[in-house]
Amino acid sequence: MYDSIIIGTGPAGLSAALNLKTYKKDFIWFGSKNLSDKVQKAEKITNYPGFPEISGQELFLRFEEHIKAAGLSITEKTVTNIMSTGKSFMVLADNEMYETKTLILCMGVMSAKQLDREDELLGKRLSYCATCDGMFYKDKKIAVICNDKKYEHEVEYLADLAAEVLYFPTFNDSQIELSNVKISKDMPVGLIGESFVEGIVLRSGKTESVDGVFCLRNAIAPSKLMPQLEIENGHIVVDRAQQTKIPGCFAAGDCTGRPYQYTKAVGEGNVAAHSCIQFLANMQG
Amino acid sequence: MYDSIIIGTGPAGLSAALNLKTYKKDFIWFGSKNLSDKVQKAEKITNYPGFPEISGQELFLRFEEHIKAAGLSITEKTVTNIMSTGKSFMVLADNEMYETKTLILCMGVMSAKQLDREDELLGKRLSYCATCDGMFYKDKKIAVICNDKKYEHEVEYLADLAAEVLYFPTFNDSQIELSNVKISKDMPVGLIGESFVEGIVLRSGKTESVDGVFCLRNAIAPSKLMPQLEIENGHIVVDRAQQTKIPGCFAAGDCTGRPYQYTKAVGEGNVAAHSCIQFLANMQG
Repeated sequence: MYDSIIIGTGPAGLSAALNLKTYKKDFIWFGSKNLSDKVQKAEKITNYPGFPEISGQELFLRFEEHIKAAGLSITEKTVTNIMSTGKSFMVLADNEMYETKTLILCMGVMSAKQLDREDELLGKRLSYCATCDGMFYKDKKIAVICNDKKYEHEVEYLADLAAEVLYFPTFNDSQIELSNVKISKDMPVGLIGESFVEGIVLRSGKTESVDGVFCLRNAIAPSKLMPQLEIENGHIVVDRAQQTKIPGCFAAGDCTGRPYQYTKAVGEGNVAAHSCIQFLANMQG
Repeated sequence: MYDSIIIGTGPAGLSAALNLKTYKKDFIWFGSKNLSDKVQKAEKITNYPGFPEISGQELFLRFEEHIKAAGLSITEKTVTNIMSTGKSFMVLADNEMYETKTLILCMGVMSAKQLDREDELLGKRLSYCATCDGMFYKDKKIAVICNDKKYEHEVEYLADLAAEVLYFPTFNDSQIELSNVKISKDMPVGLIGESFVEGIVLRSGKTESVDGVFCLRNAIAPSKLMPQLEIENGHIVVDRAQQTKIPGCFAAGDCTGRPYQYTKAVGEGNVAAHSCIQFLANMQG
């Protein structure tokens, strides 16, 4: 069992990881090695004390250097579900289960708009995880919505199984060229089906019948990840110690609310790590 | 009237100032140009994301560079009292009055131990401000406790007025050499007097009769600065938006509680500035 699992590799996750490392905690850090898209895309940052003016790309390189110098490593897996057993947490990442005493959630905020009826039909032929559920759609017709190019290998994996894939990338430079994959820019806005997904509604008003839908996104709504979390306006409710309502589960950065700022994220990541270290000490005591 | 006054030039104050500047607010920033003693004295910082390893002195230089690049200026005055009028705040700094719509308190935590009965006798021949109260001690005998060399010019000012000064610097390299100043290392631990200060008790147990006592410290307990503030274990109580219990008054950094960390301070300074900007917008609305 791990001491902690950090989810997310933006500034909050990095700050938390640096502090857990200093305190020699046994933890795993899930997320993308590209760190935060938001950091990378920022044109000019002038309010991160110590850097009078820095581009997002430069700050990203500095973060990478810091990760290397601190001897941290990132596990590039997508967490799709977390269960609390009361005494520990079970974290499902790319269909593998990890057990941990504590959690630090730093997954950012999901900018992608949800589909109409998404909440209702999740798990009913609507999935967020290709590796987890792909095999159920062998020789079927599916729709795949993808908002990050780094998930295109999952699209390929699904295309290998399914008979037909309606593919909706939210970016322009898709690398997918497969005979059974039909790329469309007419983005899905809603789901059709009573007790399970039977089709999708597109922005144009057109509908398509499918056997299942995959949403491959670089962020997952916290309420989906862990339904016991208290959520307010899409943000995880935390106290000043970054503690959520679930003992041993902490959250930091954009996922806890505005302002969406690098300094707020690094500060909260630091506080969350210190609260987590205190929690672990009390567990032992 | 200013939009805001920031008190303190540590990482929290700097972060707040950078953000108020970006939003073109009319504010004044009180504190020492030496910024934070704590930052300067830190040997090695490894958990400030973006700097894999940096000394306090190097970080100080980077902060100085950032202040210059952002066009910020520090007003080197010591704030000794703040009053809320309900609609604005009156800030007393080196005996001059400044009026402001909002306040951001980033004064750090006072590491100096208080004197026994200090709370009780403050304002009763016990003063924190040489410029404010020095003139009352013309030709008298006073004790002066000073924990920062940068206040020695105030000690000189007091020695110029008083007949006799018992001087207690908490540092080793005092520059004061005056015939009526007696330097002692036997530090005061308590005050004597019923309705006003009549003497001091020293660590050795000895006592000395004096007409008044000055404590010149680089930090002031928030409860002394502004008695309406809610204080818990010596820290200012704030919510997640860094708002204190007094509308328009925000606080950030070490003065709001542990962990005492640079990243927490810059994060909270950022959030306090954003809350302050929001508060100012609502005032106008």
